Amino acid sequence: MTVRAPAPMQLLDETIRRIRPIDPCWIDRASRHQLELTKPPGSLGRLEELANRCAAIRESLAPGVARPRIVLFAADHGVCAEGVSPYPQAVTAQMVLNFLRGGAAINALAGVGGIELKVIDVGVATPIPASNGLLSRRAAPGTRNFCAEPAMTESEMTAALNTGIEFACDSANEGCELLGFGEMGIGNTTVASAITAAITGEPVNAVVGCGTGADEACMVRKRSAVQRGLLLHNESLQDALGILRCLGGLEIAAMCGFCLGAAAHRLPVVMDGFIATAAATLAVHLCPATSGYLFASHYSAEPGHRHLLAQLGQKPLLCLDMWLGEGTGAALAMKLIQAAVAAFTNMATFAAAGVSNR
Amino acid sequence: MTVRAPAPMQLLDETIRRIRPIDPCWIDRASRHQLELTKPPGSLGRLEELANRCAAIRESLAPGVARPRIVLFAADHGVCAEGVSPYPQAVTAQMVLNFLRGGAAINALAGVGGIELKVIDVGVATPIPASNGLLSRRAAPGTRNFCAEPAMTESEMTAALNTGIEFACDSANEGCELLGFGEMGIGNTTVASAITAAITGEPVNAVVGCGTGADEACMVRKRSAVQRGLLLHNESLQDALGILRCLGGLEIAAMCGFCLGAAAHRLPVVMDGFIATAAATLAVHLCPATSGYLFASHYSAEPGHRHLLAQLGQKPLLCLDMWLGEGTGAALAMKLIQAAVAAFTNMATFAAAGVSNR
Repeated sequence: MTVRAPAPMQLLDETIRRIRPIDPCWIDRASRHQLELTKPPGSLGRLEELANRCAAIRESLAPGVARPRIVLFAADHGVCAEGVSPYPQAVTAQMVLNFLRGGAAINALAGVGGIELKVIDVGVATPIPASNGLLSRRAAPGTRNFCAEPAMTESEMTAALNTGIEFACDSANEGCELLGFGEMGIGNTTVASAITAAITGEPVNAVVGCGTGADEACMVRKRSAVQRGLLLHNESLQDALGILRCLGGLEIAAMCGFCLGAAAHRLPVVMDGFIATAAATLAVHLCPATSGYLFASHYSAEPGHRHLLAQLGQKPLLCLDMWLGEGTGAALAMKLIQAAVAAFTNMATFAAAGVSNR
Repeated sequence: MTVRAPAPMQLLDETIRRIRPIDPCWIDRASRHQLELTKPPGSLGRLEELANRCAAIRESLAPGVARPRIVLFAADHGVCAEGVSPYPQAVTAQMVLNFLRGGAAINALAGVGGIELKVIDVGVATPIPASNGLLSRRAAPGTRNFCAEPAMTESEMTAALNTGIEFACDSANEGCELLGFGEMGIGNTTVASAITAAITGEPVNAVVGCGTGADEACMVRKRSAVQRGLLLHNESLQDALGILRCLGGLEIAAMCGFCLGAAAHRLPVVMDGFIATAAATLAVHLCPATSGYLFASHYSAEPGHRHLLAQLGQKPLLCLDMWLGEGTGAALAMKLIQAAVAAFTNMATFAAAGVSNR
């Protein structure tokens, strides 16, 4: 009898095995409940669809969406060496400090929405001083440049995936009933563009956008970097884990794990913009049943985002021309989901209110 | 020397005289402030535009948007005699009771958003028992059928306009810094369609939709009623007050007054859907400077809505296929405005946060 070495992918495999598709019978049941509520049928539009899906996820006609939490994963990217961002890489660490001090957009939006924010360092290149509230789960000091070598080793990737799973699991255990996720990482629109090209087959020109404000020279470098990365790793880009390992990044791996962990714990989970959606699409490739738990928040201005949304069959709730990341779109959409569920749960029926139906 | 009788329109005239256009210098000043905040310029998209306009309205780089309030005006419509709604007219009063007991969609959405709700009877046909919280400002027991005669007398219209102005004024005096408004009134999509045709010149077919779920036979009656109303009152439809008096309704007059009152008190005011926007468009015709204070919340499924929005030059924030009224779209949009202002007011600057700018 042989003793097996502990499989590094064990948590990932177990998590995927736990994920069950949402039950269409519960969607039907929730839809029938909507017809009893004091409003013309269908008049709450997409709010009804949101509430029905939450009901199916929680298997309840009073699905809880209390204690909303956004988990923000930060990491750096070796591909920055190719000059793909107008901002220096040091900004990743500077913005992490800004999150911890409450000065960023996501702090304001989460704060006004009563959403708890957790900030995780999964691999920021610049060392970050121990700071109030920073959760350090560094799998590596950033990824490698995918134009030259795979962005991560298998063990770095697994560590980052596991970090995401664990934060979803902890959130479930701490009573969070509605999750969102976002990211910070200078250079990560280039990484998400490469992943999008690999996963959708779209040409590089269709998936590379101007990120945090790349000028035309910078755009040329971005397109070139994505093209070279795709060529170099071509043979490894046949499955989601190959794409993730070769192209990166650590925060994308963590967000991918976070989606899987949320689905395994039957929690609705709200994607932010382009980079978050790239991570979620990888999660759906690893386990298609995950898609029932995912909610798209907003249309990013990044052109690759629409290709990912089309593949996921998702239609975002908001179109506000935002392209910031950090979970800012998720924060806004989580409030819409809570509103949708409040109407579904708290409204009177025609019978109870004595309102004439048609 | 003659003694003038008190002019019934005095409050309206005084209110209009008080309204000043928002100052474009403040939009510029707010836009420059946005560039200092720790985000790539423009990356918060339409949230930046919302915050800039609030700053201009309040003439402050820390515009207050606390104590949000929605005022919901309810009234009945004589045109219901033409069979224009699948719901009986009694539903207006039944829904008012439902609002007062907290069982309607707007109660749930306002509740989850921390928005105060005031419900005003400006002319519901069915008598409503004295109920907790109902504010009775009945100008008439509903309007007359505009297919046969003018919907309102001038004094009924003036009373309803004044009610709207007074509730905006009271809200300002009570410390509300962000207002929204909505309506309840069986038959009022027919009235809003007639107003839209009169005010935009669009053909009846382009502005009549299925309201709370009209079938084809009902749609034929709606189109016919609108057409006959426009023909009958043709000579009186040359200005906003003529349109309002002949076509109605009392809640539309009150919402029109509410927009003017909010603008006079320099408060941002959020329109709900089609019927609310028809009222706001009349307000802009009465005083064009009002438009700077108005915020469109969502695209209604009603076809006439887009024609009004085009005339106002407004682009709503949400497209959730809602068509309920009651202020439900306004409630969701008010949370987006508060989020936009929170980011504008609370974010750190690049300098203060020690984040490298480009």
